[in-house]
Amino acid sequence: MTESSAPRATGRLLLIPNTLDLGSVPEGSPQPDLQDVLPMGALQAAARLTHWVAENAKTTRAFLKRVDAVSSLQTPLQQLHIEVLPRPPKGGGAATNTPSSAWEALLAPALQGHDVGLISEAGLPGVADPGAGLVLAAHRAGVPVLPISGPSSLVLALAGSGLNGQSFAFVGYLPTDAAARSQRIRELEQLSRRQRQTQLVIETPYRNTALAQALVQTLQPDTLLSISCGLTLTDGWCLTHPVSRWRQQTVSLPDHIPAVFSWLAG
Amino acid sequence: MTESSAPRATGRLLLIPNTLDLGSVPEGSPQPDLQDVLPMGALQAAARLTHWVAENAKTTRAFLKRVDAVSSLQTPLQQLHIEVLPRPPKGGGAATNTPSSAWEALLAPALQGHDVGLISEAGLPGVADPGAGLVLAAHRAGVPVLPISGPSSLVLALAGSGLNGQSFAFVGYLPTDAAARSQRIRELEQLSRRQRQTQLVIETPYRNTALAQALVQTLQPDTLLSISCGLTLTDGWCLTHPVSRWRQQTVSLPDHIPAVFSWLAG
Repeated sequence: MTESSAPRATGRLLLIPNTLDLGSVPEGSPQPDLQDVLPMGALQAAARLTHWVAENAKTTRAFLKRVDAVSSLQTPLQQLHIEVLPRPPKGGGAATNTPSSAWEALLAPALQGHDVGLISEAGLPGVADPGAGLVLAAHRAGVPVLPISGPSSLVLALAGSGLNGQSFAFVGYLPTDAAARSQRIRELEQLSRRQRQTQLVIETPYRNTALAQALVQTLQPDTLLSISCGLTLTDGWCLTHPVSRWRQQTVSLPDHIPAVFSWLAG
Repeated sequence: MTESSAPRATGRLLLIPNTLDLGSVPEGSPQPDLQDVLPMGALQAAARLTHWVAENAKTTRAFLKRVDAVSSLQTPLQQLHIEVLPRPPKGGGAATNTPSSAWEALLAPALQGHDVGLISEAGLPGVADPGAGLVLAAHRAGVPVLPISGPSSLVLALAGSGLNGQSFAFVGYLPTDAAARSQRIRELEQLSRRQRQTQLVIETPYRNTALAQALVQTLQPDTLLSISCGLTLTDGWCLTHPVSRWRQQTVSLPDHIPAVFSWLAG
């Protein structure tokens, strides 16, 4: 990487990865080591930035305090400019409801020559997370976009699953209504069989167990189901079994730790 | 992370991320800094391992030499056990042609209590890369699987694209025959429109320009096309434009640097 702190003719939009430990560390417990999951390149880039656009300003400040302990912030935390992303429309996508003037305001520092960091609460911005609208606006405005390497729970779960990594789809959240959810699971299982494609979904952690049980009940016995929970955390794990084997146990997941569910029809 | 070098009752299968710079650094040029893209946790895990299963033994040794310069290898390179993955069947998937005895032989050190590292030539094993067959065999054999955070060109490209990161599919390689390729591009564009799903594909680098030109010619003018090239490398870049705008320029990509192509129908 070749960043410098000097303003350029046009600043860039740096996509700064976050850890995957949001909400999973009990208060008062030591935080996991940032360097376990984030490359020094990401930490140094974060430490140089003066302008940020964040999913959440409070968790961004907490993140930057952890960065400072490893790579000193070039500008004191109190003097950083941290703006907050507009809430994306329900269902995700490129935040088409946000007026383009709002994106332009967030990108103004880049057009004045400052690099701007974009950060979400976990993993990479714009991947199962807000941020894509700003990235697209940057491309429209001619602001160079630089994604920086970091952890992704989806990719870690896929690698850990042993399922097909040559063809896979992430389809976000399933319906919460039980009947609609079962129907969607069956649709996605048929798609997986037809395309030999791994299907990945996530869920709000407090619904993890309900989703796991619905998958175990609904999928065919020979479908391979993988569940990953808290990857990159000390007690993180991932397991892949045929559904018939999952049925021989009671599946119960923690209600505060992110999980990823994936399956491949037999 | 809580690895130790002492053998356990059952060793684990650690999925070790590699850099994304394979083949992109001219001979004699300095290698990029491993710490720019790999977290110290991954480097330390790699430095502790004595047993490896690799996509390619030669590039794994080269990788471990780079690791050694940052985090000293616990066992000299010459004394490491490096086995090579069986070639996966054309079209990918869980290497169904490989006899289970071959996987069991590769996992034997884990069953004897040694952690085993699985590594591909770039990024995470099993994600658009070989390795999934061994991971699945580990789950079958009761060997814990531990994916370790590192770069993924697909996820970096998706984040950098600004396209929909709430629903996306990676479908591997497109056909090389021009007519079949155009038909497949149109199919995937319709799918993208219907599902509002970002479609991602990759190509062998020497065919990058041919694929880019086929996409620009075949996709609808208002479809957003994103091209990422050499992400995490010094000169890496990503650009997203409507196809109508891509048509106003000659698209030419380097023939030795990996690229990722993604699109979202308008």
